Amino acid sequence: MIIDCHGHYTTAPAAHTRFRDQQLAWFADPTLASPTAAVISDDEIGETIEKNQLERQRQRGSDLTLFSPRASAMGHHLGDQAVSLTWSRACNDLIARVVALYPENFAGVCQLPQSPGAPLDATIAELTRCVRDLGFVGCNLNPDPSGGHWTAPPLTDRYWYPLYERMVELEVPAMVHVSASCNPNFHGTGAHYINADTTAFMQFIEGDLFRDFPTLRFVIPHGGGAVPYHWGRYRGLADMLKRPPLTEHVMRNVFFDTCVYHQAGIDLLVRVIEPDNILFGSEMIGAVRGIDRETGQYFDDTRRYIDALSIDAADKQRIFEGNARRVYPRLDAHLKAQGL
Amino acid sequence: MIIDCHGHYTTAPAAHTRFRDQQLAWFADPTLASPTAAVISDDEIGETIEKNQLERQRQRGSDLTLFSPRASAMGHHLGDQAVSLTWSRACNDLIARVVALYPENFAGVCQLPQSPGAPLDATIAELTRCVRDLGFVGCNLNPDPSGGHWTAPPLTDRYWYPLYERMVELEVPAMVHVSASCNPNFHGTGAHYINADTTAFMQFIEGDLFRDFPTLRFVIPHGGGAVPYHWGRYRGLADMLKRPPLTEHVMRNVFFDTCVYHQAGIDLLVRVIEPDNILFGSEMIGAVRGIDRETGQYFDDTRRYIDALSIDAADKQRIFEGNARRVYPRLDAHLKAQGL
Repeated sequence: MIIDCHGHYTTAPAAHTRFRDQQLAWFADPTLASPTAAVISDDEIGETIEKNQLERQRQRGSDLTLFSPRASAMGHHLGDQAVSLTWSRACNDLIARVVALYPENFAGVCQLPQSPGAPLDATIAELTRCVRDLGFVGCNLNPDPSGGHWTAPPLTDRYWYPLYERMVELEVPAMVHVSASCNPNFHGTGAHYINADTTAFMQFIEGDLFRDFPTLRFVIPHGGGAVPYHWGRYRGLADMLKRPPLTEHVMRNVFFDTCVYHQAGIDLLVRVIEPDNILFGSEMIGAVRGIDRETGQYFDDTRRYIDALSIDAADKQRIFEGNARRVYPRLDAHLKAQGL
Repeated sequence: MIIDCHGHYTTAPAAHTRFRDQQLAWFADPTLASPTAAVISDDEIGETIEKNQLERQRQRGSDLTLFSPRASAMGHHLGDQAVSLTWSRACNDLIARVVALYPENFAGVCQLPQSPGAPLDATIAELTRCVRDLGFVGCNLNPDPSGGHWTAPPLTDRYWYPLYERMVELEVPAMVHVSASCNPNFHGTGAHYINADTTAFMQFIEGDLFRDFPTLRFVIPHGGGAVPYHWGRYRGLADMLKRPPLTEHVMRNVFFDTCVYHQAGIDLLVRVIEPDNILFGSEMIGAVRGIDRETGQYFDDTRRYIDALSIDAADKQRIFEGNARRVYPRLDAHLKAQGL
């Protein structure tokens, strides 16, 4: 089977987005009525999924998508901790309904109710709720809840350890994924996303996080940011910083997806990164929705790039399925329970 | 000939670095004596250059390096505008002496006395001094003088236009190059540098800078950050943002160097970026100084990667020499005056 590890509900019903607008308006002016999460019917969910993600799955021949709330709309920098919690719960509840309606096509990954400078209690509680009560298999962790001002401690800081303890206990990995940028220097999907990927990887090189948490796992999306292209730089910097080789120091715990939207990029990724560290992902329908004039195909139809690789069938199977089942053990258990 | 477009005086005499320490100590405590720039002999300069950059040039077979002050030591976020100006002048004067001592091996590129939030007058004046009085051929422009807090306007903002007007008038390009990071999220050479490269490119996509300045030119170092690896993403984002194709919109004015420290990265760079947009660079002796255990060669001996490419001799000549002479017309004039 083909598991897409990176999908967001970018097509969520308009009522859900309106709720967010009302929520932020209420935060700005508490004399307004406090809004409640949108009432959305199964039909409305079906309309937004079937002609979008589900149709693309069928067209492109993928089977199951790890599905999380829209990353750019997490907006951890907006409102406060309470606003972030209410919004995250509404987003995650909606994902749970998508998964309940299409259990063969989607598995849940949650948004965390992060907020700049806030303690992680609400984040840990919501992660636990999503995994234990809603059956989610992973989470998206924002290394920069400030939205482009980078005021949080690095991911290797002990600030994050209580969350990591819970992730390990629950056996769920995190995808490192920022949200929108409110810093005019950083275009969201064109700079902030990619920078965050690169930044997180270098933090892992500098730190000793996986000595403290040997079973903690992260997926760095968008093909690992700049990292594979600069693989020599990162190997060389690890040496200069007197870190162990990256294969031991980082790559037992860190994985890259295949959200790289051209053949040459995927070719590089597979040339320098071990197939055990690569998870198929497309982020459809996401950052880059158009058709590549050079190929006549969707930029984000990343399956085509993997199909075109001259690698072993066993390696392709790892990239398409095996690694996802290993990195997301709750997904594997869920699939096995279905006889898959 | 082989022109290395990216070299910094990372081995500057200790007295120069001591002056900087004294300067910052004096800024913190103005009751201390105000220091003056270090007195450095020609012999001291010779010692720091001949066994380092000059020896590497000979070993690796490059002829001339575009040489600028140490990027990580620019430290625009330290002190204030006056401190930045004094330090920049001392750094640039030292580069001018290196060039005077080894005119066949180095050409000068200046540090600019930027300072967070400061007007650009001092920057423009120092650029002009370096070009007109010291014979420099380019400059390094820091898009984030705050050192990792990204508080300046994007490079496409009109804030920068007076500098660009002078650059155009003087016919000098800028390398987009940040300095050290004081944000613990960003390792300097492992995250901040690469992020800045990626960020600048996306700013150029979003803006219309080269409509206003059709002859303005930037070199984005470190192989263009993440950009070539994500070339499909950037082509797709340009489409989504209704920008012209990148070949017209950005790539008449923007060039990438070859500071990518492994063969696979250079192979990708040359596969997706036109040879007219690639300038040979190594940044030796710089961010990654060690020997690659996989090859037994220095990571930053980037000439080997170019030599190994299966491309036309004419394209190699462009990468090694022709493009640098086109992008840096003052360098070309200088070489022609020598009959080169």
